Amino acid sequence: MTWQPPRPAFVSGVGMTDFGKHENRTLTDLACEASIKAIVDAGVLPSDIEAAYCGSALAGILQRDSGVGQSVLMELGITRVPVINVENACATGATALHLAWRDVAYGIHDVVLAFGVDKAVMPKGTVLAAGTATFEAQLGDIFPGTFALIAQRHMSQYGTTAEQMALVSVKNHDNGVLNPYAQFNKPMTLDDVLNSPMIAEPLTLFSCCPNSDGAAAAVVCSRDWLERTMGGAVRIGASVLASGDYDPKRDMTYWESEAFCAQQAYKAAGISALDVDVVEVHDAFTISEIVHCETLGFCKRGDGGAFTESGATGIHGQIPINPSGGLLARGHPPGASGLAQIFELTTQLRGTADARQVKAPSVALAQIMGGSKANDAQACAVHILMKDLD
Amino acid sequence: MTWQPPRPAFVSGVGMTDFGKHENRTLTDLACEASIKAIVDAGVLPSDIEAAYCGSALAGILQRDSGVGQSVLMELGITRVPVINVENACATGATALHLAWRDVAYGIHDVVLAFGVDKAVMPKGTVLAAGTATFEAQLGDIFPGTFALIAQRHMSQYGTTAEQMALVSVKNHDNGVLNPYAQFNKPMTLDDVLNSPMIAEPLTLFSCCPNSDGAAAAVVCSRDWLERTMGGAVRIGASVLASGDYDPKRDMTYWESEAFCAQQAYKAAGISALDVDVVEVHDAFTISEIVHCETLGFCKRGDGGAFTESGATGIHGQIPINPSGGLLARGHPPGASGLAQIFELTTQLRGTADARQVKAPSVALAQIMGGSKANDAQACAVHILMKDLD
Repeated sequence: MTWQPPRPAFVSGVGMTDFGKHENRTLTDLACEASIKAIVDAGVLPSDIEAAYCGSALAGILQRDSGVGQSVLMELGITRVPVINVENACATGATALHLAWRDVAYGIHDVVLAFGVDKAVMPKGTVLAAGTATFEAQLGDIFPGTFALIAQRHMSQYGTTAEQMALVSVKNHDNGVLNPYAQFNKPMTLDDVLNSPMIAEPLTLFSCCPNSDGAAAAVVCSRDWLERTMGGAVRIGASVLASGDYDPKRDMTYWESEAFCAQQAYKAAGISALDVDVVEVHDAFTISEIVHCETLGFCKRGDGGAFTESGATGIHGQIPINPSGGLLARGHPPGASGLAQIFELTTQLRGTADARQVKAPSVALAQIMGGSKANDAQACAVHILMKDLD
Repeated sequence: MTWQPPRPAFVSGVGMTDFGKHENRTLTDLACEASIKAIVDAGVLPSDIEAAYCGSALAGILQRDSGVGQSVLMELGITRVPVINVENACATGATALHLAWRDVAYGIHDVVLAFGVDKAVMPKGTVLAAGTATFEAQLGDIFPGTFALIAQRHMSQYGTTAEQMALVSVKNHDNGVLNPYAQFNKPMTLDDVLNSPMIAEPLTLFSCCPNSDGAAAAVVCSRDWLERTMGGAVRIGASVLASGDYDPKRDMTYWESEAFCAQQAYKAAGISALDVDVVEVHDAFTISEIVHCETLGFCKRGDGGAFTESGATGIHGQIPINPSGGLLARGHPPGASGLAQIFELTTQLRGTADARQVKAPSVALAQIMGGSKANDAQACAVHILMKDLD
């Protein structure tokens, strides 16, 4: 695959629900709210939608529901179009967007809806596995454990400190305060993060993202439909999705699949890491954001901790990362997170992010990954959005 | 969507496991067996695969595993390609094939793997809902109930008899005897079907398909890769996937979404129902096959019962339907069934179906549907395969 499609595709509408707890709302209800907002924002009608992708990572596992996409289409009055439910762990929402991008960029459709939703209603004691449920979880390879190992290794190999990692959480909670959609709207001090209950050394409670309920959606369209958008369109400069591989000797502190996606995406968009103005990454744990800084090429390998400490990743820093609050503060319904990143970056590129607006961005990058197997992601996605529409 | 892609796509390899009970095998293991068989049959290497779609309808619900696609790719040594897990209820396997077709037909990839797998290990008392799990199941709208209503209505409206419906099961079990992959290999008499325990009047136990374990796979490729195939390639004349709609006043005895898919598919392939030589349909219940005969245009509306009774749908009849044994006898792992249909039809078009070979077929049709909502399918797929390769 060249990742160079025959024509450009655009995000012309975005929408999301508040992230947090929505005990009395269904998956369908949440997904409808986000989808209707995106459709209105794009200035299209439900009947203009030619295909739809519904992402939910937990609907089957936690809610025994595998037909959310169909239910949402019924509610929206969209009929006779292909609707496909997809899941790719935490990369689920990005996978829905990738398929919508593909449909438009390869001329299959002109207007496609991607939405993602999850509710994290879990029976007490439920364990979400990092790899397949079959073996890894039984061996203790659940998310906090896996990422604690990565953090330990990063500390040992590069001298990264617990304080540097905690600063990721402090920054993202500061950003969350400015985001009306975020699950957590309170600032958090370094001590708050460091002194919260230990989950898996060195990761404390506030070093880990929450489980959240919520939905997000985007309308992807071809150039002909651009003038209808209410909020302004952004061009999808690149959409890259890749599986990981299995190499038990790999350096745990680096995600090869993510580096591959980033390189392919930079190439497809004709840019380098230096051209990126604003970023949303998959900060499921504080250490993750530090590694993403390195893997995406924003700082040298091993320097992610110091880079964070320098303030470079703050809203007014050299390269703002997670202005939305990220998974740590905005919250993380895995089916929706990838599309919530697109919501945030589209809002930033439009210049309508209010108090959390970064300075005049023209290139934005979203990175998200799902699952893990010997510490390479099972699915990784990188999207590049660009303000320049020509 | 025109359903008319810029270039043809071909099925160049197929593979499946035995359908039945595989208590000691994992989803990954079953899917690997089917995938390896399909890859070998296509004459390609795992490293030639440029993208993969994994269909599983129940992995999340029943096995708490949402990363089967990734696990299979790891085992096969396929890395750095997009892999997407899809689910569309009983249309899940066909959805994986549809995406593979789209990738090749629209020039995104040249060699794509579609596989589907499920294990129906259910705790006693588990109920699989026909619609979303939220409301319909609570109201009793589970599969046997929904299809019993359709059967009752068909009997009342058209005079269809319990015997005519039972003959579908007799025929399909006769075919299953000839299929080494089938779950049930014993013939069944009309009395066996009629006298088996009543599930939902008029549907008896042997009027309902079983829950099965199994996997099936297909390799889809562009023309350049055709000469590698070991078993022979067939052209995908049409691949149509559509959602249903919601109209509580609709005639229950007819599926509008299926009629839509069939019409689009016939148009795309440049044929009519009269040109079809062999068919696999979604006979989850005996009444279903009768309705499909009508909806797909093989007989007049209301005549499906008499058409079945006439023997027209037997292996040596006017239009053989479900020579594999169908869901009723081959078995029904929902993630795999759509691809098992493609396995059967490819085998039939190749002329290698041995004892169950129909006479010199050149056009084949596969129909499958998933879920239901006020009796329109939530997802319906129709594929047309053609022997003619030019």
